[in-house]
Amino acid sequence: MVKIAIIGYGYWGKNLVRNFFSLPHCTLYTVADADPKRLQSLKSLYPGLNSTSDIESIFKNPEIDAVVIATPVFTHYTLAKKALLAGKHVLVEKPMTASVKEAEELIELAQKKSKLLMVDHTFLYTGAVERIKHMIEAGEVGKINYIDSTRINLGLFQADVNVLWDLAPHDVSICFHLTKDLPYSVQARGISHTKNGIENIAYLTLNYQTSLIAHFNCSWSSPVKIRQMLIGGDRKMILYNDMEPTEKVKVYDTGFEVNSHEDRTKIIVDYRIGDIYTPKLQTNEALTGMAGDFVNAILSETEPVSNWKIGLKVVKVLEGASVSIKAKGKEVTL
Amino acid sequence: MVKIAIIGYGYWGKNLVRNFFSLPHCTLYTVADADPKRLQSLKSLYPGLNSTSDIESIFKNPEIDAVVIATPVFTHYTLAKKALLAGKHVLVEKPMTASVKEAEELIELAQKKSKLLMVDHTFLYTGAVERIKHMIEAGEVGKINYIDSTRINLGLFQADVNVLWDLAPHDVSICFHLTKDLPYSVQARGISHTKNGIENIAYLTLNYQTSLIAHFNCSWSSPVKIRQMLIGGDRKMILYNDMEPTEKVKVYDTGFEVNSHEDRTKIIVDYRIGDIYTPKLQTNEALTGMAGDFVNAILSETEPVSNWKIGLKVVKVLEGASVSIKAKGKEVTL
Amino acid sequence: MVKIAIIGYGYWGKNLVRNFFSLPHCTLYTVADADPKRLQSLKSLYPGLNSTSDIESIFKNPEIDAVVIATPVFTHYTLAKKALLAGKHVLVEKPMTASVKEAEELIELAQKKSKLLMVDHTFLYTGAVERIKHMIEAGEVGKINYIDSTRINLGLFQADVNVLWDLAPHDVSICFHLTKDLPYSVQARGISHTKNGIENIAYLTLNYQTSLIAHFNCSWSSPVKIRQMLIGGDRKMILYNDMEPTEKVKVYDTGFEVNSHEDRTKIIVDYRIGDIYTPKLQTNEALTGMAGDFVNAILSETEPVSNWKIGLKVVKVLEGASVSIKAKGKEVTL
Amino acid sequence: MVKIAIIGYGYWGKNLVRNFFSLPHCTLYTVADADPKRLQSLKSLYPGLNSTSDIESIFKNPEIDAVVIATPVFTHYTLAKKALLAGKHVLVEKPMTASVKEAEELIELAQKKSKLLMVDHTFLYTGAVERIKHMIEAGEVGKINYIDSTRINLGLFQADVNVLWDLAPHDVSICFHLTKDLPYSVQARGISHTKNGIENIAYLTLNYQTSLIAHFNCSWSSPVKIRQMLIGGDRKMILYNDMEPTEKVKVYDTGFEVNSHEDRTKIIVDYRIGDIYTPKLQTNEALTGMAGDFVNAILSETEPVSNWKIGLKVVKVLEGASVSIKAKGKEVTL
Repeated sequence: MVKIAIIGYGYWGKNLVRNFFSLPHCTLYTVADADPKRLQSLKSLYPGLNSTSDIESIFKNPEIDAVVIATPVFTHYTLAKKALLAGKHVLVEKPMTASVKEAEELIELAQKKSKLLMVDHTFLYTGAVERIKHMIEAGEVGKINYIDSTRINLGLFQADVNVLWDLAPHDVSICFHLTKDLPYSVQARGISHTKNGIENIAYLTLNYQTSLIAHFNCSWSSPVKIRQMLIGGDRKMILYNDMEPTEKVKVYDTGFEVNSHEDRTKIIVDYRIGDIYTPKLQTNEALTGMAGDFVNAILSETEPVSNWKIGLKVVKVLEGASVSIKAKGKEVTL
Repeated sequence: MVKIAIIGYGYWGKNLVRNFFSLPHCTLYTVADADPKRLQSLKSLYPGLNSTSDIESIFKNPEIDAVVIATPVFTHYTLAKKALLAGKHVLVEKPMTASVKEAEELIELAQKKSKLLMVDHTFLYTGAVERIKHMIEAGEVGKINYIDSTRINLGLFQADVNVLWDLAPHDVSICFHLTKDLPYSVQARGISHTKNGIENIAYLTLNYQTSLIAHFNCSWSSPVKIRQMLIGGDRKMILYNDMEPTEKVKVYDTGFEVNSHEDRTKIIVDYRIGDIYTPKLQTNEALTGMAGDFVNAILSETEPVSNWKIGLKVVKVLEGASVSIKAKGKEVTL
Repeated sequence: MVKIAIIGYGYWGKNLVRNFFSLPHCTLYTVADADPKRLQSLKSLYPGLNSTSDIESIFKNPEIDAVVIATPVFTHYTLAKKALLAGKHVLVEKPMTASVKEAEELIELAQKKSKLLMVDHTFLYTGAVERIKHMIEAGEVGKINYIDSTRINLGLFQADVNVLWDLAPHDVSICFHLTKDLPYSVQARGISHTKNGIENIAYLTLNYQTSLIAHFNCSWSSPVKIRQMLIGGDRKMILYNDMEPTEKVKVYDTGFEVNSHEDRTKIIVDYRIGDIYTPKLQTNEALTGMAGDFVNAILSETEPVSNWKIGLKVVKVLEGASVSIKAKGKEVTL
Repeated sequence: MVKIAIIGYGYWGKNLVRNFFSLPHCTLYTVADADPKRLQSLKSLYPGLNSTSDIESIFKNPEIDAVVIATPVFTHYTLAKKALLAGKHVLVEKPMTASVKEAEELIELAQKKSKLLMVDHTFLYTGAVERIKHMIEAGEVGKINYIDSTRINLGLFQADVNVLWDLAPHDVSICFHLTKDLPYSVQARGISHTKNGIENIAYLTLNYQTSLIAHFNCSWSSPVKIRQMLIGGDRKMILYNDMEPTEKVKVYDTGFEVNSHEDRTKIIVDYRIGDIYTPKLQTNEALTGMAGDFVNAILSETEPVSNWKIGLKVVKVLEGASVSIKAKGKEVTL
């Protein structure tokens, strides 16, 4: 039985509380938030649950085995460090930290303390991503030639981080989960339409030594909501459209032929080469899977799916992207 | 009555012949193609029409007022130059030429000879683009903050030019048609999955001194066909989806607010801020409008919509993009 | 302050409890259900809330002002009658009762006792239906010529009522809400693919003396989920697609012309005659509006939107449809 | 080599001429139309082709082997009869004739004269219908429980026949092609919004002794164009959406279970039970297949796919439907 404390009862914290509250093999011991209004709202929904506005008390309490951190990014490092120093396992919201330096320090500390350090990249636990991962590992998709992601909508502009730090962690973590290839450089270009200079539109490219290229289109300023990823293998191509209620993943039996043929009529009319297969997906809530993986990784001392390695890679990409944006799209070697 | 010769009876040449054949105020005098098979196919459809495999004869014939060039890009410069030197008006397929140098030479020659030099950027004559242009000029859209274009499908890989030279002219010409802003630099990144090293996937960014950013996602390797452009103004945002049979243009009454508000639930559930308006569009064939504009510009000595200025800007962007791709995405000043 | 008891804590009862629990101007006094497991599940979510497995105690308790009945259809009459006899206001789930006779008896009783009798046709409180109603009342849509509804999905076959009793109340109540016309007859045809003979697919037509026709396609056996209603006026036509996340209501500026013209090409290519307008809709939960209307109707002694008149008309149609189905689609006069 | 004459150069006649003109194993001998303007338009496209405004000359000409009739429905019988009496094979546009009596007389005559009598139900030759037919015959779909068809759009109101005679032949012929079951009765209800009393909206049901039910929703008054057919088998269900450019046929691995289970949450969230398969379809023009089948059936003396049996069944259904509509939806035994 893992005794868990959650720090932060904001938007995502509510979902974490709901999930850990009913999860087996763990007890939600307490919830901490500096804002008493939020704790009141917690009380009305979970009258029996402990809560505190004294965050430091969490670290001092020897009863607590693990801490879940759902606070703004810039606080992740400090809170996770305190928790690890206090000998607790840590699950931190994505992105892991605000810098690579912070992430590496936490990782080293976790290893020294032999504690689990995990990042909540929830999307890795969706039925869609699990299915795609399975197809790739089974060799059905072949060598992956490109990942092309669009995650745009009319979103809330954040005050502290740009649109890449907000939206790209989802897709970049999926990218690292699906392929073993590592990019050698990143490039990003963005624009801010607000006075604070924080980019609300940004484009990110990951460059690889292999045949792979990965591109991410992120925006808070689109009138339509698009959450779409194309994964192009040399055997199959996959369209992952997260806005589709039931047909999120479509697998195309589609090669493409090099041809200097002049007449393009046929290919234009009939650009599909084979059948399409739309697999049935698991519909369990992804966050439940993530929470369960955290508890299970602690109990069985195994590595969770959304481990610190992926978390670190994501922060490296985001940091590199920030440098690149400030240098007007200059290539930044990782 | 403008007497017209068309050079090249390939895929697009067929459409040009069909349109100029029935256009008022002009006569389709002859069609030239080096391939006798194509001329045979022309004969079977238009038994009364002149045709020739001797392209040089076109330039020598004093009867011919104007020449339409629908041949591969690398031949545009030579053929257009000969036609201009022979004192003929010229309509050339997009992109205008294979280099800026060639384009500028043609433009200078046309001015010296007082002949029309026009580029066939057909999309500028679609009901959709005409309507969007009209809304922008009427001030309905406000200041344009971004143009985000995706033109991907499972296409025929071309042997001589990369995917940007093939697909981007459509969207880049629309971009220059809709905004008066001029980019100061371009950046592009691409990848080739074939031995000839010609990029089949590429991403292009235009950077402006204003609040505008323009991004173009082009691919011959997508299992799904997407032709979508988002035009974000500070008053309205427009979604132009060319795959929609009847609802190609949607106009969103959508501002976005800068807000440091923590709770994102509301915005996620209800990200639309106003009504959507889907205007009825002209459904005339765009190519008919382009051909008519060419004839009319000759007869009335006015500037056509798809003029050499746009044609030149497009070639500048494509040339800059090629340099940038070879330099691994380095920013290239225009 | 209206003191409310809810009978039935099944699928819909849970939503009713959640809404009445947080509604102003009323107190959720208690929840009754014969099944102790359900009451336990209630306790875990609402620890402070009263509950009872003794349904009769509700009627005896003079503290309770109003009873909400969310039990299977065949029990509505008995429970509502007891509540009215005990001098309580009644809100009953749709459809109101299992027969017209039962409905009329309840209505008479409610009038005698001067108590509110209301039916929960939740859809009348959706932003979509409210907007359509508003447009029709403002004269924008003109005379309504047809209502064509499709509500099909892969649904749970019910053991006691056929697909019309399960699905049609939504659309039939909307139909009566949007038009003042009254059908003079109904016809229905259905088929059962199960041994119990309960129809899982059925088609229902309402016939009017006016120019209106209304048709309802209901099925539990469709692999795709469709919830779509076309409302054709002589000024505008409306497409109400409840599966669309944000564009549920589209208004078409579309007349149609009587024309003996032989050439159909043009109309086939361009069948839209005007613009499309997609209004922004209220996104409040419909059930909250319904619950609030119930409480408000009690306090202000006004007629609620989803009143017994609509409830009775719906039961008349359903009863007529059942007769028609058994008589193989014979027309049944209402 | 079959020598063919086409009577009628209207909307559909143009497509027939285009197809028979380039078809192997036959010669398009002449085209007849009473309207000289149409013949002029024919001349401009096919300068070498014979044409005549004297329709009777077709029947007298012993050179002509087969006659294709593409004239209004009410003329089919007279023209086809003359052609058969003159010893010519006949292909007639759908629907075959304006009455069952006429159809039966033609059939008898064709048999007496040993000539082919075929009806152009083009949809039977689409890649979509061919694929569905193949799946059903291979037993993949199982026993067919329902066919539910919607064919609605903003169409041209016809002056002589109602919407069922115009639109339903497509879907009814597909229905007879896909299943061997024969309906014992039809029912139809319609409404006319024009002074001539011709129904522009109609609903048609075919009743079977088996577990099958077939329903057809036809309208010229819908603001949206829908061409959709659901085919529900007890093993698989098929969605045939003819408006989809590339994914016209989707096959659902979807059974449905009889269950008295009270909690409907799960089924609502997850109503799909298995995978979806979207087969690649043949993209040849259906009309080419139909024309080729006509020529081949003459030459090889075999039965074509779209034979007179299907043609007759369709006319029987249409005639029965007309009787039913006039009798306010009364069941009409076939």
